Amino acid sequence: MNYFSVNDVDDPNKWIDEALALKNELELKGPKSKTGKSICLLFFNSSLRTRLSMQKAAFNLGVESFVFNVGSDGWQLEFGDGTMMNGNTSEHIIEAAGVLSSYFDAIGVRAFPSLTSREDDYSEKILSQFIKHCSIPVINMESATLHPLQSFADVITIKELFPSKKPKVVVSWAPHPKALPQAVTNSFMQWAGKMDYDLVITHPKGYELAPEFMANATLEYDQDKALANADIVYVKNWSSYKDYGRILSQDESWTITNAKMNLTNNGKFMHCLPVRRNVIVADEVLDSESSVVIHQAGNRVTAANLVIQKLIG
Amino acid sequence: MNYFSVNDVDDPNKWIDEALALKNELELKGPKSKTGKSICLLFFNSSLRTRLSMQKAAFNLGVESFVFNVGSDGWQLEFGDGTMMNGNTSEHIIEAAGVLSSYFDAIGVRAFPSLTSREDDYSEKILSQFIKHCSIPVINMESATLHPLQSFADVITIKELFPSKKPKVVVSWAPHPKALPQAVTNSFMQWAGKMDYDLVITHPKGYELAPEFMANATLEYDQDKALANADIVYVKNWSSYKDYGRILSQDESWTITNAKMNLTNNGKFMHCLPVRRNVIVADEVLDSESSVVIHQAGNRVTAANLVIQKLIG
Amino acid sequence: MNYFSVNDVDDPNKWIDEALALKNELELKGPKSKTGKSICLLFFNSSLRTRLSMQKAAFNLGVESFVFNVGSDGWQLEFGDGTMMNGNTSEHIIEAAGVLSSYFDAIGVRAFPSLTSREDDYSEKILSQFIKHCSIPVINMESATLHPLQSFADVITIKELFPSKKPKVVVSWAPHPKALPQAVTNSFMQWAGKMDYDLVITHPKGYELAPEFMANATLEYDQDKALANADIVYVKNWSSYKDYGRILSQDESWTITNAKMNLTNNGKFMHCLPVRRNVIVADEVLDSESSVVIHQAGNRVTAANLVIQKLIG
Repeated sequence: MNYFSVNDVDDPNKWIDEALALKNELELKGPKSKTGKSICLLFFNSSLRTRLSMQKAAFNLGVESFVFNVGSDGWQLEFGDGTMMNGNTSEHIIEAAGVLSSYFDAIGVRAFPSLTSREDDYSEKILSQFIKHCSIPVINMESATLHPLQSFADVITIKELFPSKKPKVVVSWAPHPKALPQAVTNSFMQWAGKMDYDLVITHPKGYELAPEFMANATLEYDQDKALANADIVYVKNWSSYKDYGRILSQDESWTITNAKMNLTNNGKFMHCLPVRRNVIVADEVLDSESSVVIHQAGNRVTAANLVIQKLIG
Repeated sequence: MNYFSVNDVDDPNKWIDEALALKNELELKGPKSKTGKSICLLFFNSSLRTRLSMQKAAFNLGVESFVFNVGSDGWQLEFGDGTMMNGNTSEHIIEAAGVLSSYFDAIGVRAFPSLTSREDDYSEKILSQFIKHCSIPVINMESATLHPLQSFADVITIKELFPSKKPKVVVSWAPHPKALPQAVTNSFMQWAGKMDYDLVITHPKGYELAPEFMANATLEYDQDKALANADIVYVKNWSSYKDYGRILSQDESWTITNAKMNLTNNGKFMHCLPVRRNVIVADEVLDSESSVVIHQAGNRVTAANLVIQKLIG
Repeated sequence: MNYFSVNDVDDPNKWIDEALALKNELELKGPKSKTGKSICLLFFNSSLRTRLSMQKAAFNLGVESFVFNVGSDGWQLEFGDGTMMNGNTSEHIIEAAGVLSSYFDAIGVRAFPSLTSREDDYSEKILSQFIKHCSIPVINMESATLHPLQSFADVITIKELFPSKKPKVVVSWAPHPKALPQAVTNSFMQWAGKMDYDLVITHPKGYELAPEFMANATLEYDQDKALANADIVYVKNWSSYKDYGRILSQDESWTITNAKMNLTNNGKFMHCLPVRRNVIVADEVLDSESSVVIHQAGNRVTAANLVIQKLIG
């Protein structure tokens, strides 16, 4: 079993309940005793929450974690089939995956998209090769198109905020100076599609997600209309899928301010972090009671706890 | 409670006794069993002793340590209030501190000064923001102006060398090819001021410390006069505070040699390390019985043991 | 006691048996309980297998491991005697070794050769200084001229494949786009010399090893003749020892293909990894039953287990 996307999860709502029960148990009893199991966390890209929440979750479960920064610690990996490796890559994924599989009980991989080739990125060139060549469970720590540890933390957080009500959840694009992946949004949409939400997505024209990630969501190009009566405002920047990897807008009128939040039903502000203050969202929102971003980030550990336990616990 | 400076320590002399007792206990009984607690060690700058002694001390106390290199592992942090973050910084200290506080029981931070803005450095721009925004204890692993883990190790070492005598302790500047912070010297002066020392500082004109760090020390511009009858020769280079961050002298006559040590009362040579041989101090001194630098570096663990125990043990 | 080369091993064949017994025991019973011991793994160069197998082995034995990347984490080290350190190096090996010796129970060091000065490299400038100045056991995690953890894993693997037969072991050079050290081959030859092998080495003229590493091996310049009837084909590229550090040939006819393997006695293909596919060896060989490279890499943990246990277990 791998944890690549929500499709690897038999019953997402049951997982939420189990994650919250495990969170509660760990808070009461502290970390579990050592299991003798170990996990390798492989980073092709920077990370703060993913790295530290995975290490913390492994520690919580008595699993030893070993961090490996591919770029600085190891060898440049080759992912092509049949390549004559006389260039810059020193080691093929086939060998790397084989060796890691013989050392550890599971592996986590973070590998961002290139944002230059939509085909490469949306075929999940890197993660799919790890999954293909590893004989141990592979955990997606944010791939080219998905970030399921984040999304699981997100739906856990929404469940804590609205244990019984069917919330109106609005996913809103916001401006950002750099071209960012669609992974966080895609993945949240996948999970949200399994939840009992009234789901709306809003963004400037040209920022439409790949159709397979639209689930049962309503698309509304007018942000103000979308925000009306929202319980959750889930904000994220992403670059264009259609005009792949490009920034089509930096429209500051999409920045989330108190005025925007006032359109909602006393809504809560969510963001996966890191967040650029006063670009994505105004200080006045982040520093207010309506922001739940730290609580949400705390649930990255809650999500990771259950994923590691399900795979090797 | 934080460990930012000696001012966070209720009774520095009692802490020395407790640190030595704990050192003794650990040597006899080995590391303590796991506490379930964890600490994150955040490095903005290079480190050997601080990094490894903190990890070792955490291990000694049954506390799990997680190292995070801000530059290479994570996101560039923003420290400004109200900044519109459309430049190079991706994450604000407010969020980083909030998230780390929700994952760990304490945090250590190393952040060197710029040596370009005395105002920024002496306001402890970085450490003070961590302290402000973290809800867990913050340990200063060398900040812009202070290095209290080093200083605590230093006074522990002097106590071991002179358990009963009031020693003459001479802090001497020595030349160095690069501009270095004042942190180690400032911090040692703060701690030394709480001890029963005959404290003398000697340096070329222009290297006066900020007045608040002079404590009850005597300033003597003539190094040879200062060294007369010294029990401890504590050597360190620093750049100018007045002419901020500048190198005003590389005068080789300040290098510590056997001839200099012969002026002392069979004095012991101390330095925080890393030390540039034959620039700061001659091989003949470092390789002699009078050097206690390795013993002193060993006490970095002794100091860290107690600090971690006091904060989260 | 150190682990610098096979010369530190009293009875290499007995070590193989002990390593296999320990492997078996760990597979049955899982990792040993915590010993309170700790080891520091110091990397001057990249690593995947060495780094992770040493960490895994330490974990298996209840020894805490601390990884330190010299280049990015710490200070540039000075190895010269009597140097006036007013250049780029900040810390002398004498102090670094002294401090590490006071913090840990053992140290592993990886330091590749320059491939520019044969004298520096073959005098083992870096490892020999660590051994000289450390008061704790030093483990060679690949030095300028030797890689004894790899070689030990290699002979363990061959023992598993041929528990009773005296195998014909052929060490073959293969082409590579970059100049590589002789360390893996030198070291394997040293170990193989202690084994009951029919040992043959084959390479283009100019690639002769330093005479002290030729042991009792037969040198055969014709690769096809060498491969005849081989049980083990141990493949590796190295740069010239005579014309030091230079690439003298990139002759693709030395690449290991099925046609080459067909010359052997149903031989097994071995390589230390990372391996460049379709340069060193064709996909058809690596992806066949005759390749044992993943099993061999798995034995890096087997070898490391015993070395750590022998030194500090």
